[in-house]
Amino acid sequence: MRTFAEISGDLVAAGRRFDARGWVLGTSGNFSEVIARSPLRVAITRSGAHKGTLGTADILEIDQSGTRVGGGNGQPSAETQLHLEIVAARDAGAVMHTHSIWSTLLSGRAGQDGGIPIQGYEMLKGLDGITTHEHREWIPVIDNDQDIPRLSLVVRRVLAQHPGCHAFLLRRHGLYTWGATLPDAVRHVEILEFLLESVGRARYSSAIPEEAAPWRS
Amino acid sequence: MRTFAEISGDLVAAGRRFDARGWVLGTSGNFSEVIARSPLRVAITRSGAHKGTLGTADILEIDQSGTRVGGGNGQPSAETQLHLEIVAARDAGAVMHTHSIWSTLLSGRAGQDGGIPIQGYEMLKGLDGITTHEHREWIPVIDNDQDIPRLSLVVRRVLAQHPGCHAFLLRRHGLYTWGATLPDAVRHVEILEFLLESVGRARYSSAIPEEAAPWRS
Amino acid sequence: MRTFAEISGDLVAAGRRFDARGWVLGTSGNFSEVIARSPLRVAITRSGAHKGTLGTADILEIDQSGTRVGGGNGQPSAETQLHLEIVAARDAGAVMHTHSIWSTLLSGRAGQDGGIPIQGYEMLKGLDGITTHEHREWIPVIDNDQDIPRLSLVVRRVLAQHPGCHAFLLRRHGLYTWGATLPDAVRHVEILEFLLESVGRARYSSAIPEEAAPWRS
Amino acid sequence: MRTFAEISGDLVAAGRRFDARGWVLGTSGNFSEVIARSPLRVAITRSGAHKGTLGTADILEIDQSGTRVGGGNGQPSAETQLHLEIVAARDAGAVMHTHSIWSTLLSGRAGQDGGIPIQGYEMLKGLDGITTHEHREWIPVIDNDQDIPRLSLVVRRVLAQHPGCHAFLLRRHGLYTWGATLPDAVRHVEILEFLLESVGRARYSSAIPEEAAPWRS
Repeated sequence: MRTFAEISGDLVAAGRRFDARGWVLGTSGNFSEVIARSPLRVAITRSGAHKGTLGTADILEIDQSGTRVGGGNGQPSAETQLHLEIVAARDAGAVMHTHSIWSTLLSGRAGQDGGIPIQGYEMLKGLDGITTHEHREWIPVIDNDQDIPRLSLVVRRVLAQHPGCHAFLLRRHGLYTWGATLPDAVRHVEILEFLLESVGRARYSSAIPEEAAPWRS
Repeated sequence: MRTFAEISGDLVAAGRRFDARGWVLGTSGNFSEVIARSPLRVAITRSGAHKGTLGTADILEIDQSGTRVGGGNGQPSAETQLHLEIVAARDAGAVMHTHSIWSTLLSGRAGQDGGIPIQGYEMLKGLDGITTHEHREWIPVIDNDQDIPRLSLVVRRVLAQHPGCHAFLLRRHGLYTWGATLPDAVRHVEILEFLLESVGRARYSSAIPEEAAPWRS
Repeated sequence: MRTFAEISGDLVAAGRRFDARGWVLGTSGNFSEVIARSPLRVAITRSGAHKGTLGTADILEIDQSGTRVGGGNGQPSAETQLHLEIVAARDAGAVMHTHSIWSTLLSGRAGQDGGIPIQGYEMLKGLDGITTHEHREWIPVIDNDQDIPRLSLVVRRVLAQHPGCHAFLLRRHGLYTWGATLPDAVRHVEILEFLLESVGRARYSSAIPEEAAPWRS
Repeated sequence: MRTFAEISGDLVAAGRRFDARGWVLGTSGNFSEVIARSPLRVAITRSGAHKGTLGTADILEIDQSGTRVGGGNGQPSAETQLHLEIVAARDAGAVMHTHSIWSTLLSGRAGQDGGIPIQGYEMLKGLDGITTHEHREWIPVIDNDQDIPRLSLVVRRVLAQHPGCHAFLLRRHGLYTWGATLPDAVRHVEILEFLLESVGRARYSSAIPEEAAPWRS
């Protein structure tokens, strides 16, 4: 079992790393890791902290209701309930929410109750349990909502409807992904942000049809 | 009350951070923070300094007329008067001007007396007083002008016409934003540069209509 | 002859460098350098390691069959056999595999048994033996395959068919290149990623015909 | 007068800075600064050095014929003669050559004996002697040529034809700019790379006409 100090240090490091890539600008993004299962204790970033300059005082300890029971000062992330839904639905050990340009653009264009299919990319093999690029990952897109309890219920329903999905997008709000451990969740962020940028650049391009592409052999 | 040394250090740090993102290339950009209100004293970057390699000697202290009364050497930023207009109109504690690719592109295309509406993005909630992504932010675009006193009057008029706006753009010249404190103004820069890049990439793309997008559900 | 410690240190440094550019996100990418020729000994990154945070314990020593015979812990990269094919076919001293957005996009659009021609760029002169921008480099694109022994045979055939090529792409999987020494292979990565991004941005743009370009003289 | 050690240190720092932005990948780019005027002595990067990892041993001292007369080891940059032409024609104190994606793309599309006009951007004021964004800068584009003596004569002619220009592009080869001092030349690189990316992104976009742009007021 990892100590709260170890967990805090690793969440701080993840914040610096994602900030360097522009995935947590402003005070966007929030991260959590499960400390203990019963009773549930979770380390989560506080609301309003910049993820690129986190200190360990910005990491709070909360219980299964989202109430702060230890750690740093301030309020838990406003989206704490979404983290707890994911932990419960997926038995996740860590949950990461990032907010990149490409996840914003792609999620803005998907239809109501829509999603983004990704298939044929080697990078998919970086997702837990995926062994071939032929895998078809469906990333649900959920309408954004400031009513977090209501949004949590939608997240619960979507996770149940898509038991194999590794992530979802909130529309024009960004990516949620998770993993059995924090390194798994961090890897999923990198994998999915790469795939979303790849799909995004392809979709947003002039879409020269393959047969007309002059560099085809 | 913050000391001049504390303020200088934080302006230097903001410069390094924005330089890493390519928002203050060359000697573009200028930053200020209010030291005291009556009489007004403002810390502002000197004209011609590179914002990525600022030293505390590059931060000057000026009075309400823009005259240097202390701090480092050199002349205050050529756009000092715009900073003072914003401080007066918005009771701002800090003003930041950045000069990114996307603010340059978007402001170049907006019409005369135009502006850029931004709505539906979660990132809008990072702006002071905004509590929902459904907020519609209007970013006025002002024609660039080398006559700074004349430009200051236009800025004054635009700020009065748009009492709720958090920023404006000078055409092909970049972004001005502000906040109650320096961290607020820095956060506004990150939020707005993110939103301008998002809107810019969407507008500059091939604009595949949503109904034709093959990844729609 | 370089020591295993020297080689490990340089592979670690290459990983950090490529990670900063976003070319080895997740656990993508793998690197190798020949330690000795007869019997063959190769230093190679272990499977599943993040290339931006490699430690020397992540570098393994393998023999000509790909079996670990020394160095750090874990399993050799899953694509070890491709490295060995390239070492044999090209007498290479080092092999690098990176996984960038642009190599993913371009390789995704090339036809079956296709490739990407690159000609007219000064940067081509950074490839071993190339002395003029007029050189036409053909970068074969090979269909991705999870059956590595089968893929190795295809790589062998393609390398024989294109004796002058400096690299190949696996479809939506990334770039393989090599060199007489590790610095040569690292330089080839930078040269080719630059060229692929240049070709990619040109191909994915609106392709305004030159005669219609308003900035033409 | 600056010492050779001071100059070397500043060229090394410029290399690291430009490398971070991706403007000198592979072994592309070369930099020089005039040490003394009569007889002429110039500090210049050696051929084949990576600009992001320069050491002071990579900086050579040459005379007016381009012959190495001191400093580090190796051969002067293959494009030394272009540096000397610029020093002579413009009385420059420093010359910088960078090799970015956007300068490569834009120069590839300009016509024979063509160039790229840039007007209306505030950033133009960062060029020596320019006081308004209304300035029209013409950046000549010169066909690339491996015959450097022949190319030098073309450079000489173009510099004479465009006495006000601050830079030129070699087609699909990159940017040459200069300044009275090294900081001036470094600033010119940043200004021009910013402007070329801005113009490039606008030209390579779908070019939605302003009157059709839905975000116009």
